[in-house]
Amino acid sequence: MSNITVFGTGSFGTALANVLAENGHQVLMWGKNKNTVQEINEEHLNTKYLKNAQLETSITATHDINAAITHADVYLMALPTKAMREVANEIDSHLTTQKIFIHVAKGIENDTYKRVSEMLEDSISEEHNGGIGVLSGPSHAEEVVIKQPTTVAASSKSPEVSKLAQDLFMNDYLRVYTNDDLVGVELGGALKNIIAVASGVISGMGFGDNAKAALMTRGLAEISRLGEKLGADPLTFLGLGGIGDLIVTCTSTHSRNYTLGYKLGEGKSLDKALEEMNMVVEGVYTTKSVYNLAEAHNIEMPITTALYKVLFEDQPVDESVKDLMGRGKKSE
Amino acid sequence: MSNITVFGTGSFGTALANVLAENGHQVLMWGKNKNTVQEINEEHLNTKYLKNAQLETSITATHDINAAITHADVYLMALPTKAMREVANEIDSHLTTQKIFIHVAKGIENDTYKRVSEMLEDSISEEHNGGIGVLSGPSHAEEVVIKQPTTVAASSKSPEVSKLAQDLFMNDYLRVYTNDDLVGVELGGALKNIIAVASGVISGMGFGDNAKAALMTRGLAEISRLGEKLGADPLTFLGLGGIGDLIVTCTSTHSRNYTLGYKLGEGKSLDKALEEMNMVVEGVYTTKSVYNLAEAHNIEMPITTALYKVLFEDQPVDESVKDLMGRGKKSE
Repeated sequence: MSNITVFGTGSFGTALANVLAENGHQVLMWGKNKNTVQEINEEHLNTKYLKNAQLETSITATHDINAAITHADVYLMALPTKAMREVANEIDSHLTTQKIFIHVAKGIENDTYKRVSEMLEDSISEEHNGGIGVLSGPSHAEEVVIKQPTTVAASSKSPEVSKLAQDLFMNDYLRVYTNDDLVGVELGGALKNIIAVASGVISGMGFGDNAKAALMTRGLAEISRLGEKLGADPLTFLGLGGIGDLIVTCTSTHSRNYTLGYKLGEGKSLDKALEEMNMVVEGVYTTKSVYNLAEAHNIEMPITTALYKVLFEDQPVDESVKDLMGRGKKSE
Repeated sequence: MSNITVFGTGSFGTALANVLAENGHQVLMWGKNKNTVQEINEEHLNTKYLKNAQLETSITATHDINAAITHADVYLMALPTKAMREVANEIDSHLTTQKIFIHVAKGIENDTYKRVSEMLEDSISEEHNGGIGVLSGPSHAEEVVIKQPTTVAASSKSPEVSKLAQDLFMNDYLRVYTNDDLVGVELGGALKNIIAVASGVISGMGFGDNAKAALMTRGLAEISRLGEKLGADPLTFLGLGGIGDLIVTCTSTHSRNYTLGYKLGEGKSLDKALEEMNMVVEGVYTTKSVYNLAEAHNIEMPITTALYKVLFEDQPVDESVKDLMGRGKKSE
C-alpha cells in the first residue's frame, strides 16, 4: 500500500481519492478552500462537488502545501488546466527528491498550446521528475464515487508509470487499461470537450438524436485529424480516452461542457451561461486554443470553427448550423 | 426527377419515401399489409410505424407487385433482412430489364452469414442487376420524417450507384456522404445492433453513463476487428455507418434494439421482451450469426459472447457483466 497526495479537491480528484482509499492507500488531499478541507476532515463529505457522497474515513485533507508534499512519492494532479502550472511550480520549489505525477486534467494551455504533461515537464525540474502520466476516459465523478462500473486509460512516456497507475487505481468497479500513446490520450480528453459543447448547443436548439450522432461522428473525424498532425496515433481516438470519453461527455447531463453548450443553444450569451455554471468549463478555453492551432496547421475543423464563432464572435447558433448543413456534396 | 419504388412500408422506408417525394420524385410504395396501403393512399399516414407524421400527398401505395415493378428503374429495398431474399426473388421473377437496388436493411443473414447486398446479388439475375447500393447511418425514421437534420452514408461497389443515391436523397435536412467501402458500411449497420442490445441491457440493469460509454467503445473495437477480418476498412467503423449509427442506436429511446435490451436488463425473458415489441429486432438474429462467425474466425468478441449467452443460453445478465468487468489487466 502507498501514500498518495491528491492535489485539488474538485469532483474527479475527490472521486479518485475515494477509489485510492478503498484500494487501501493512505490519501491526503490538498486544496486552497478551507471549508472544503474542513468538511473532508470532519464530515467525510465534499458537498460543493459531490453532494451526499460519503467518502472513506481514512482520507484526510490539508491546505498546507508542505504537508501535502512530504506525505507521498506519488501525486495525483487533479486541477483545472489553467491552475496546473502555478501549483506545479509551487510544488517544485519545495521538492528535494523525485516524485511521480499522474494528472487528470483535460485541456490544452492557451497561448502555448501545450498538453498538460508538457506543462508539468516545464514546471517540474528534471531532478524532481520521476515520471509523468495521465488517467483519462469516460468517467463521470458522480458515478465513480458510487461505484458504478467505469473504465479509463492510463498513459505515460514511461511504461512503468502507466503500469503503476493501473495497479494503484484498478479494482472491481474501475477497470484501467494501459495505453502507450500519451499524446493521443491527452489530446482525446482535451479535444472532445469542444465537441461536447457543440453537442449541447444543438440539443439546446431542439435538434434530435440523428443530428447529435452526426455531430459526434464528424467531430471525432476532425479531432482525430488534428491529433494525427500533432503526433497522436489516430487509433487512440477510437479508444476509451477518445470516442469513449466523447460519448459520455456528449450524452450525459453530468457533463459541464454539454450543459454550457445547452444554455448557448437555448439562446443565452456566453457570459450569462458561464455565470450560471458552478465549475470550470474546459471546452471554452480549448476551443480558442484549437481554433488557432487548426489555423496555424491549416487543418479543416468545421465544427470547431462554427463553435468558435458562436463563443467568441457572437455568431447566432442557427447561422452556424446552417453553415455546417449547407456544405457541398462530400465523401466520408 | 425520377420514378422510384419503395419496397416495404415500415418506418424507415416510409420516412425515406417522404424524403424522395419532397425532393420531387414520383414514389410508389409496395407492401403486403392492405390496411397500411389504404391508409397511405387515402389519409397520407402510416400510423402503425410513424403515428401523426403527415406524408407527402404525391406518395401512392400498392400491394400489386407488378405495378410496383413497372413503376420505376430504381428500387429502394426497405425490408427486414429476413424478408429480403423472398421479396427479391419474387421481384426478379417478374423482371425483364435492369433495375438499380438501394437497400436500407441492417442485418446479416443467419446460416449464410451474407450481407444484404450479397443476398440481393444472389436473388437478382445478372441481366436484371443494374447495380446494388446501401444507405446507412444515424437516422431514426421518427426524426427524418419531421425533417430533423440527419446524415447518412451511401455506398456501393459502383461509384455511379453511390452518387445516384446521394443525388436522389440529399436535401437541406438530409446530408448524404458517399463512401466506397460497401463491406464496412453494411457491416457497421448490422453489427452495431448487437452493441445496442447490450447497451440496453446494462441501462435496464441500472448502470450509468460511464458503463455505457465503455461498452460502446469496447463494442466498437470488437466489431471493427471482425469487420476487418471480413474485408472492411476499419476506418469505416469511425464513420457515419459505424460509430455514428452505434451512438444513435445505443442512446436513443427510438431504438428498438436498445429497448429490447433494456427489457432484458430489467430481468424479462427474451420471449417476453420480444412479445412486448411491435417490430422486428434485427440485433437478436445478428447476435446469433456473429457469435458463430466469430467462433469460426477465432476472433475475440467478449461483448457479443456475453450477449449471446444471455439471449440463447439463459445466462443471468449480472453474471455476464461480471464476466466482462472481471477480466485481467489489459492494454487498450
